[in-house]
Parts: sequence; structure tokens; C-alpha cells
Amino acid sequence: MRLTTIRWEGGTRAGRVDGDDIRLLPYADVGALLASGPDWRASALMQSDGGRVSCADADYAPLVPHPEKVVCVGVNYRDHVAEVGLELPDHPTLFAKYSRSLIGPYDDLVLPANSDAVDWEVELGVVIGQTVRSADEEQAWQSVAGYTIVNDVSMRDWQLRTSQFLQGKTFEASTPVGPFLVTPDEVGHAKALAVSCAVDSTVMQQSDTSQLIHSVGSLISYISSFITLVPGDLIATGTPAGIGGARRPPLYLSAGQTLRTAIAGLGEQANRCVAPAGTPGPVHSAQGVR
Amino acid sequence: MRLTTIRWEGGTRAGRVDGDDIRLLPYADVGALLASGPDWRASALMQSDGGRVSCADADYAPLVPHPEKVVCVGVNYRDHVAEVGLELPDHPTLFAKYSRSLIGPYDDLVLPANSDAVDWEVELGVVIGQTVRSADEEQAWQSVAGYTIVNDVSMRDWQLRTSQFLQGKTFEASTPVGPFLVTPDEVGHAKALAVSCAVDSTVMQQSDTSQLIHSVGSLISYISSFITLVPGDLIATGTPAGIGGARRPPLYLSAGQTLRTAIAGLGEQANRCVAPAGTPGPVHSAQGVR
Repeated sequence: MRLTTIRWEGGTRAGRVDGDDIRLLPYADVGALLASGPDWRASALMQSDGGRVSCADADYAPLVPHPEKVVCVGVNYRDHVAEVGLELPDHPTLFAKYSRSLIGPYDDLVLPANSDAVDWEVELGVVIGQTVRSADEEQAWQSVAGYTIVNDVSMRDWQLRTSQFLQGKTFEASTPVGPFLVTPDEVGHAKALAVSCAVDSTVMQQSDTSQLIHSVGSLISYISSFITLVPGDLIATGTPAGIGGARRPPLYLSAGQTLRTAIAGLGEQANRCVAPAGTPGPVHSAQGVR
Repeated sequence: MRLTTIRWEGGTRAGRVDGDDIRLLPYADVGALLASGPDWRASALMQSDGGRVSCADADYAPLVPHPEKVVCVGVNYRDHVAEVGLELPDHPTLFAKYSRSLIGPYDDLVLPANSDAVDWEVELGVVIGQTVRSADEEQAWQSVAGYTIVNDVSMRDWQLRTSQFLQGKTFEASTPVGPFLVTPDEVGHAKALAVSCAVDSTVMQQSDTSQLIHSVGSLISYISSFITLVPGDLIATGTPAGIGGARRPPLYLSAGQTLRTAIAGLGEQANRCVAPAGTPGPVHSAQGVR
């Protein structure tokens, strides 16, 4: 099953993908559907108020627009650890992002006027479907509602100003999430999916979720050992090698480029990079990038 | 004006302190009152559904139970910077805490079974009363709804496992916030208030908010340069010298102790440290610690 959140009639609506269409569900977004109770799968399959929109015409919102928590994982791909010259870590490195940072999978990415170092990070996103606390690994895997794509876009100049990453990771409207929540049965619990990130046609990151150091199950178990995870919570599981900041010289996003982020089986994102309002920059066509 | 959030009839209620009493307001909590609109001050003064409870009998909830953001500041007292041997920083160090970590100002502090290093950090808390983005310092000061007490209780063993503090800072139900939101006019915008933290009768931290490196106004201006702050958001402005982890040998909280946190003009907190359920520990009296 594939679920999504689209912009609809001035707000947002949850929907279920049905062939080439999205059938609208009576929930404001996928987070609200997941929070509706343990029968959310049945609700998503049975409930529909009859509305439909084609996948091609949909205006995709952040998959979970208002999660209680966004938990991000650093240093979690074997190849990325090699790239930045670290040893394999015993514990996951965790940091947060505020939900106001999230954008839709095809939204414009406005490059902030106060950063010169906007970088990409393709990540497997995990959405929680069931409340868990002190979960063992089996309970942890069972708590997954599904998987999605996250680009943990990072303002490296701000991220590295101090020891703590938060300020470079939580710029307003900077983190594409979506387009779909894909249930675990459809993608083998995302244990071996190709992940990639390209800027225009240049592939920058290319790896596989089998390179994850801390698995999805172990991450959920670990996080739940200190705080309760609830339906709709989003975990961004870390990025592989190929970030712009690790290149010599460093390479960052520019207005006019399109950031393309893909995970096999989960779909893809395309975010056009635009200059902030009032800033001279390249002229963009009125067409979208999809 | 002093506002508070108390537990009431199975939920919570906002209230305004009126002498020795709290007059109940028709909002679920102080965050909901602040989010009600720019006239929240007038609403707090005029609206009351007639209910009253004495301050002494009230069961205080976290002052803002569900803020959209909790932003914490590290390395922000001149004396603490000296204590840990750092230079004065150019930029604020920022990290997050999830709202599920917050507890009331007199709640028991359950010492987690999976940490051996639960430490204290008295902090001036700032609650935002007005939406701000890219605020200059004057707009920043004007956006403050009021001030409160936060104890940024930290599990040092988890905090220092990796480079990122989050996991040691956001244990479930570990951060006392409250009891009151005190409006800026009552405390000179908290620019020179004595702050202290004691374990039982031993004073561990004692400083003054005039020691802040980054002022409240500059912090709000800085944060709002990358994300919108909204009513109810909580900023914990950093802690002075005297934390247990910086002592030789380190000193941490034990079951049976009471953590006492105070800021002149804002009141005080008292949190009894208790062993987790199922753990043998000292026998506690049935009496509270207030």
C-alpha cells in the first residue's frame, strides 16, 4: 500500500494510491491517519469519501507535515564513514529537525540568502505507525508504518559553526519528504534499496540501504529506550557518501539547479533550487520540474 | 502578570495568578492562550470562567506542555565557559529537545534505569508570545511572552556518547518547566536575575542572568534568522557553572534527593528524584517536597 499527503482545497488531505490515481481519505494528512488508531491500515483501505485525483496532477505536501518528532541520524552509512574518515560508531549519532523545516517532494527549494553552503543528503525516511517505548528489535520493526524519501538538506556553514548541527539542519522549508509512504511488505522493509541523489543530471550520491550501519530496527529500539515514539514520527536514517561539503573543492547548490532524490521502490523527488525573493538570479521557466 | 498551567479535571488548564489564587482561564494551557492571538494579554486579564484554585493546592503541569519547538542553548554563561575551558563563542550553540521530555515544576524526576549520570542545569526559560521571522533585536525582545524556569536535566553518559547532545537531553519526562510565566514588565526582561540550583540543601549552581553571553534578544533574533518562532515556543538559554559532570569526581543525582531550582522573581521548582518502577531504592515519604 502507498499513502500520500496532497494539498487540497486550501489544506491537505491523506490519500491512497490506486493505480494512477490517488483516492482521497477522510484524514488531513498521513500523520493524522496513522494517529487514528491501530486500525489505520484497514481505514486507509476501506475509507474513501469518493474523491480522486490523478497522481500526475497531485500537489504533494510533506508526507507527514506535523510529526511530533523528526529524528535524524548522522554517520550511518559505511561508505560515508569512510568518506569523512571516521571509525564505525558504537552508538547512533542523533539530532533533531523541527517540523517547520519540511517541504513537499516537488516543492521549490528556496536557497536562503544567509547561507552559501546548501548541501544535499539523500536519506531513507521511516515513519512510525505504532506507539513504542523500550522496544526490542522485533517490536521496533513492527512499529514501522512505512518508508519514504527524505533529503536532509543541510546548510553546512551554519551546521559547522558550533559543535551542534541543529541550526544547519532545520532551516525553514528546506527538507523534502515524500512523495509516498510505502508499507514494509512492498519493499522488503527497505533493507536493500538503491538510493541516489543528483543535481540536474550529475549523480552525486549513489549507494544502497544495505550499507546502513545501524538498521531501522536497531535505531527505533535505541531511540525508544529514552523516549516514546508515536505514530507519524519521522526518522531520517543518515546519508551515504557524496555530499558536496566533502568534495575538494566543496560543491553546493545554486539557483536554477534541480535536486533529484530517489530511492528504488519509493519513488523520487525533484526540487528546483530558487533564489530567495528579491534576489537577482537565473530566470526560471514557468514549468515545474517533474 | 503571572500565568500558569495546572492539571485539572483529567486534563490541563491555563490560569492567571491572582494573589494566593489561580483564576482558571478557558484555555487548555499557557501555550494555547498564547496561540489564541495577539490579544492574549487582554484575554488572560479579562477572561475567566470563575474557577479558582489556591496556588498552594495547585498541581502544576509543564508551563507549555506541547510547544512546537524547544530550543536549547549551550555554552552561554561566562562562568560556565570558564568552567569547561572554552573561549567565548561567536555564535550560539543550539540543540533541540522534544516536548515529551517536559515535566511539571514539582513532579517527581524518575531517574532512568539506563543512565548513571543524571545531571542538573538551571536555565532561564523564554516563552515566545508572537510569531517572528528574521527579527531584529528590538522585534526579538518584543516577541517575548515571558520568562520561566527550566532545568535542562541531562544524562551525561548519553549526551557524550556521540558528537550530538540530543539523546542525553531529551529523555522522556526529564525536564521541569515552570511553575509560572512571568511577563517581562515584572522582572526587567530577566536581564539581572539570580539563578541557582541545589541538590537537597547543597547549592550546586549560583549565578546571575547578567552573565549570559548571548542575550535573550540576540538569541531570538539569531534563531529567527533561519526558522519562524511561534507563540508557545520555549528557549532554554543555557546554564551557568556548577554542573555535576564538571566536578572532580563527577557528581550525579540519586534517588531520594530533591532537585531545587530557583530564579529570583520567577519562583522555584522542587523535583524529588525517584528510582524507576521495579528498582529497589530508598523509601519515600508520601508527602511531597514543596
